[in-house]
Amino acid sequence: MESKSYMIHTNGNGVQSNGVQGNGIHHVNKKGSVNKAELRTRKPGWNIRASEMSKNTLNPIRAIVDGMKLTPNPDKAMIALSIGDPTVFGNLPTDETILQAMKDAIDSHRYNGYAPSVGYLQSREAVANFYSCPEAPLEGKDVILTSGCSQAIELCISVLCNPGDNILVPCPGFSLYKTLAVSLGIQVKLYNLQPEKSWEIDLEHMESLINEKTACLIVNNPSNPCGSVYSKEHLQDILAVASKHCIPILADEIYGDMVFPGYSCHYMAPLSRDVPILSCGGLAKRWLVPGWRMGWILIHDRNQTFGSEIREGLVKLSQRILGPCTIVQGALESILNSTPKEFLDSTISFLKSNSELCFSALSSIPGLTPVRPSGAMYLMVGIEMEHFPEFRNDVEFTERLVTEQSVFCLPATAFEYPNFFRIVVTVPEDMMVEACSRIREFCKTHYRPDTQDTSDPDQ
Amino acid sequence: MESKSYMIHTNGNGVQSNGVQGNGIHHVNKKGSVNKAELRTRKPGWNIRASEMSKNTLNPIRAIVDGMKLTPNPDKAMIALSIGDPTVFGNLPTDETILQAMKDAIDSHRYNGYAPSVGYLQSREAVANFYSCPEAPLEGKDVILTSGCSQAIELCISVLCNPGDNILVPCPGFSLYKTLAVSLGIQVKLYNLQPEKSWEIDLEHMESLINEKTACLIVNNPSNPCGSVYSKEHLQDILAVASKHCIPILADEIYGDMVFPGYSCHYMAPLSRDVPILSCGGLAKRWLVPGWRMGWILIHDRNQTFGSEIREGLVKLSQRILGPCTIVQGALESILNSTPKEFLDSTISFLKSNSELCFSALSSIPGLTPVRPSGAMYLMVGIEMEHFPEFRNDVEFTERLVTEQSVFCLPATAFEYPNFFRIVVTVPEDMMVEACSRIREFCKTHYRPDTQDTSDPDQ
Repeated sequence: MESKSYMIHTNGNGVQSNGVQGNGIHHVNKKGSVNKAELRTRKPGWNIRASEMSKNTLNPIRAIVDGMKLTPNPDKAMIALSIGDPTVFGNLPTDETILQAMKDAIDSHRYNGYAPSVGYLQSREAVANFYSCPEAPLEGKDVILTSGCSQAIELCISVLCNPGDNILVPCPGFSLYKTLAVSLGIQVKLYNLQPEKSWEIDLEHMESLINEKTACLIVNNPSNPCGSVYSKEHLQDILAVASKHCIPILADEIYGDMVFPGYSCHYMAPLSRDVPILSCGGLAKRWLVPGWRMGWILIHDRNQTFGSEIREGLVKLSQRILGPCTIVQGALESILNSTPKEFLDSTISFLKSNSELCFSALSSIPGLTPVRPSGAMYLMVGIEMEHFPEFRNDVEFTERLVTEQSVFCLPATAFEYPNFFRIVVTVPEDMMVEACSRIREFCKTHYRPDTQDTSDPDQ
Repeated sequence: MESKSYMIHTNGNGVQSNGVQGNGIHHVNKKGSVNKAELRTRKPGWNIRASEMSKNTLNPIRAIVDGMKLTPNPDKAMIALSIGDPTVFGNLPTDETILQAMKDAIDSHRYNGYAPSVGYLQSREAVANFYSCPEAPLEGKDVILTSGCSQAIELCISVLCNPGDNILVPCPGFSLYKTLAVSLGIQVKLYNLQPEKSWEIDLEHMESLINEKTACLIVNNPSNPCGSVYSKEHLQDILAVASKHCIPILADEIYGDMVFPGYSCHYMAPLSRDVPILSCGGLAKRWLVPGWRMGWILIHDRNQTFGSEIREGLVKLSQRILGPCTIVQGALESILNSTPKEFLDSTISFLKSNSELCFSALSSIPGLTPVRPSGAMYLMVGIEMEHFPEFRNDVEFTERLVTEQSVFCLPATAFEYPNFFRIVVTVPEDMMVEACSRIREFCKTHYRPDTQDTSDPDQ
């Protein structure tokens, strides 16, 4: 053994010819070839700073909520209408079929090892079969499994946009789009939704934001925080703008199929023949297991407009952290195919009943303007600030609502939409009734029939 | 209702004063204030390109393996010694205690909702208690749960480094460090490990690479791909260099405690009083469930050198995709505390026996130079290329080994270390015996006692 050499022979072929010697690599692997010039003096002492990227990863909800003085009235039990998690009150348990599918996956002993970074093919095929339709057919290769819908959105933004590009984002809208984009140096342009039109997009405004740096249009339907569900015609109008300007769509459809009776849920892909669409979804909402972190991207690209480049880019990005938990992946086919239809129906029935209850109650309160939802699990309420002169904005309004009535609603400033607040309609009915009653009392206390400053000719 | 206004009052306070109106935001939320100048003409037609980041997310293993012609000999069953997944052959099942903990978590109905993005406090405390020691105490606040050790490493690199910084990475070493760093615009500097010293770091070489842009030193112990386990003294020498130059350490300790009898596993943090250390680990290897994607970061920072900035940065980054699967989080305390000691002992016993078997067999093969491992689940084998003149490098050598003998070993070019190959020692013993026998036959066929080119005076 002693005659054997440990010297590393750098003939170059192995590394160079396989393209592994990527950019940014400083490689000194011949023994003794250490470059002394590299040893520059560092400043003495510790000076560790967090990266710019971490500093630029801003969560508006946290920034706002953490800045609020949330001290409930000690005489009233706290009611949080702020938490977008349908499981917290225990009144909306997931289905036993879903839990059994998980236990079967565990008992099979087949799902403990690494899956491919985009997910098991069998699980991807299960998702493809679930969402495939003649107008927008899907195969396993068109599905990428992710660690929750959040990672699905992250991968889509990361693959479509470079720093300096911009994306079009709904206002009001889910804050994660901005959080992710800004951290990656991507500009966010907010397009207006119109509360008076059930939160339809102001298409003229949206189109006016498009320029040569627009890399992606994000459409969230059904919507968080609005609870809106777009008609087929409106979605076709949105697609027409994307088609005209050749902009791909990131469709955040995590609330897909969560629409109230009388409305229809239309996914975007079947409505278009040319616009390439990345549809993001997951188990979180419809199957009521947000903590399990099972999301997916559906690649709709019938004209090969994304081409292999976007698909390969998504695969590469998925290799950074290697996909979602394999037990959930193993249970996925059964969850999608065996969960009884009554489970979704029952969830929707509850959400509709609760949101109708809330909408009716708040509609009759002077100073508030709720917008009737048609799906998802949210309801937005406008505050006629001129009638509440004690408060400068929705943040102060909702802060005081906690102080006096122990009811917490998220100020819509968190969604870039001041002077509204969002109510989550997943709380038990008795809590919803009580909360609405307290909101009524609060508004009655602070409502002023006339604006404070009617002398300003500019108003 | 018809008298109510949906106009949005932009008094500015709500948004501006809460710091939410971040950089890069183009906000037009007054109705009618659309800026027509924005509507520049886009180039006609679709032109969607994958982002630079996705193109720069390079997986060297995939790049090399996908470029190889891997056509096994049809007369011999394929034996893959290449897969770093201990579960694939079924001979190393996880413990029943671990599976039961998962089923208990499911049956509790308590772990279906969102956890905090850094994990449940109870689960973080369980990890803290498991790894805390008097020299390096840990509390729940010092633990961040992640989607596998891969995400732990991603978050650590992301929080410590800016584009243009550099990090020091072992060579040979796990390819993910480079994959993540390069995609973020961070330079990778490879420091040499010394096979003749059981893969100890060439400290002089490592130190020579340090400059004012060095943001982090990555130490992987026990090592993938080397199977090496560092002595306490060597780790202290490494820490002395980090201390001298004030460089924080990212300790990839995912193979922690997976060391063979006669060796000791020393974690880095208890050996230092001043160097701030982010230790990355997870359930993948020791508990044999890599697919479950449960990883963690242990923040060791007794002198507040990282300070609140790095902690806050990690929290912010964790909010991008919201942590690991809650079912695994719910099972974590039980997994850590109830898994019998015999489970780890039995795993180690098998790995040691198999690696000794492999090392002995390969040591007696002319032309090969295996390096004896002392932990983890790998063994590196040097190829004396001068004795195998038919092959230009490790890639060609291992490619032909598949063609002729249906044995696949990963060429160490995938770890930036040409002319070695890596063997995974988790395969069943009979497969290991058979594989070594075939490797012997292969080497016998191609070995040439003398180098082809002895006339070159430079060699």
